[in-house]
Amino acid sequence: MDRRLFVRSGATLGALGMGGLGFPRFASANWSPRLQAGAIRMNSNENPLGLSAAARQAVIDNLDLANRYPGDLIGQLSDRMCSYYGIDSDQLVLGAGSTEILQMIVQAYASPLRKLVLAEPTFEDVNDYRDTYPYDVATVPLNSRYEHDLNRMREESERDGRPAMVYICNPNNPTGTITPSAELDNWIADAPEHVLFLMDEAYYEYVEDPAYWSALKWVHDRPNVIVVRTFSKIYGMAGLRLGFGIAHPLAVRRMQDFAIHSSANQLALAAGIACFGDDELMAKSREVNREAREVTEACLDELGLEYLPTHGNFLMHRISGDLDTYINRMSDAGLLVGRRFPPMLGYNRLSFSLPEHMEQWADTLRDFRSKGWV
Amino acid sequence: MDRRLFVRSGATLGALGMGGLGFPRFASANWSPRLQAGAIRMNSNENPLGLSAAARQAVIDNLDLANRYPGDLIGQLSDRMCSYYGIDSDQLVLGAGSTEILQMIVQAYASPLRKLVLAEPTFEDVNDYRDTYPYDVATVPLNSRYEHDLNRMREESERDGRPAMVYICNPNNPTGTITPSAELDNWIADAPEHVLFLMDEAYYEYVEDPAYWSALKWVHDRPNVIVVRTFSKIYGMAGLRLGFGIAHPLAVRRMQDFAIHSSANQLALAAGIACFGDDELMAKSREVNREAREVTEACLDELGLEYLPTHGNFLMHRISGDLDTYINRMSDAGLLVGRRFPPMLGYNRLSFSLPEHMEQWADTLRDFRSKGWV
Repeated sequence: MDRRLFVRSGATLGALGMGGLGFPRFASANWSPRLQAGAIRMNSNENPLGLSAAARQAVIDNLDLANRYPGDLIGQLSDRMCSYYGIDSDQLVLGAGSTEILQMIVQAYASPLRKLVLAEPTFEDVNDYRDTYPYDVATVPLNSRYEHDLNRMREESERDGRPAMVYICNPNNPTGTITPSAELDNWIADAPEHVLFLMDEAYYEYVEDPAYWSALKWVHDRPNVIVVRTFSKIYGMAGLRLGFGIAHPLAVRRMQDFAIHSSANQLALAAGIACFGDDELMAKSREVNREAREVTEACLDELGLEYLPTHGNFLMHRISGDLDTYINRMSDAGLLVGRRFPPMLGYNRLSFSLPEHMEQWADTLRDFRSKGWV
Repeated sequence: MDRRLFVRSGATLGALGMGGLGFPRFASANWSPRLQAGAIRMNSNENPLGLSAAARQAVIDNLDLANRYPGDLIGQLSDRMCSYYGIDSDQLVLGAGSTEILQMIVQAYASPLRKLVLAEPTFEDVNDYRDTYPYDVATVPLNSRYEHDLNRMREESERDGRPAMVYICNPNNPTGTITPSAELDNWIADAPEHVLFLMDEAYYEYVEDPAYWSALKWVHDRPNVIVVRTFSKIYGMAGLRLGFGIAHPLAVRRMQDFAIHSSANQLALAAGIACFGDDELMAKSREVNREAREVTEACLDELGLEYLPTHGNFLMHRISGDLDTYINRMSDAGLLVGRRFPPMLGYNRLSFSLPEHMEQWADTLRDFRSKGWV
């Protein structure tokens, strides 16, 4: 089955009736809710708190702009973000979610001469987008600590002396693990300019480990480091589609050649202006996420199911038996979990919802155990 | 000056301070409002009525979905649209505005062997997007009636026997003129499959001329005809970013390879579901547009300024003297008009706002006349 059939258009998905097709990507994430109203979504790494009150009000207050092409609000948000990050406005590019930024980069640097070096498993969008472009792809399994295997990725990126793009998702989706920032810094410091570092920091704001920091400091002097962030996670705006890239002006200019015109929508911009940099909101997102993680880990400890140390708003844990069967049984219990992340098919990725939802999940898992299913 | 610097990121625009740079594309459209609060926008072909009441309510009612990736609403909207247009769901693709659909198509069919045949002047996005791809571009001036010159476009598309993409914006932006649908049908009926017709019908719902109809009937049997439409115009949703393409399943599948994941946002989808196919809304948009056009044409007739026969929500009229000077003077009077559409620099494109706004514009134009400026 061609996965690309399933990832883009709801239309196509709808026509095919996802229920009978197992769980190709986005199927459980996007389609089960219609099949099963009231189910709890723990399958898309969304923020269960929803929009902040200020962001909700900002959407309502800006409804009069819904018939106008974006413009003024882009400037307002850009000004705030540039001030917050200490960057110039030509170092920032907005998109319809960070996925648009990833697509821009894949397209902007596509070349038959360029090797794309990716971890396995990692977030799939870069690999999806490159599929129609002439990259030479090298896939490097995560190391035994489920970190990016930087030694092997470096070998791959340097093997032929050709241009390379290295995709680093840190924390990594779907594993939640971090790759030590000091080791990344060492590599970046040594790397030639024809090795491009695509640093996906979608879950940056959740991390509290001192071994982790952003790659942002590199973008001022190095055109070969691009940092990608999103409003989808810590700010709870996944449905509004707002992400961004921060890079050297030379990289931003190239990326913009592949941007969709007017792609940040007015209501997302209004919401973003209302909540960007809101420390209280971020602290609350982290706190609820921590509580949810504690409930989850306590249950997995109790049942003796291994899980990876997570730094995001999700966790990957062992299951017994077939992954699709597990996902379907959880779905039958009103809990949408998972999707497949080959080759880790002995694990399920579980997105943290509210702590009370995790209690419900834990009770269900205990029930599965009593039935001998996990 | 590289125009691409100015079209994508508000960040870049903001940094450069658009005021002093004349009117590169989108500059007046997007940036003047901040420089000049309260100015009336007559420069972006927006619907001055704004979101319908039902669409506004739908946005508010769906705020709880703002933290969730789009999915269920895509299916709901797709179902409605497919039923309305009599198409299968694998013939529809949604995007962040019709401009994302145009970008998908440009990317999906890019080849050093393919000739892109465009009118001049026409809507710029296709030409912008192709800039980084290896198209061989042939530009064909509009004919003396300001229609697409189909004879010459056909010659260009057939000259070498190579694959071609023909972009037909009908009604044409910026001229507002229509190209007779019967002539287009004749060409499409005769054309080989390696000539792709990209039919941009963004203003379709405004047209009341019996010589005009959609190219939709072709998409069932012909993979080489793609129709592009938008919620930005008749539905007043330009700021929400929702457009769509209708085509043969083979074409849709290819386009989806270049789509941004999850790009139709939840609130746009909710608004779209609330207003799609709403006859009363469309009739009202047309009626207000007609009244605005009548005010505009009466003033131009009175002042003896030639204008093109328009079928959209905008009109192109003669000015005297320098276009930038005219646009700046209108801006000083609180009216945002224009932008440059070479080679028609003796004309200004005026988007219709509410009739009372057009009266204000007419008074301003009369004042300009009294000063000898037009």
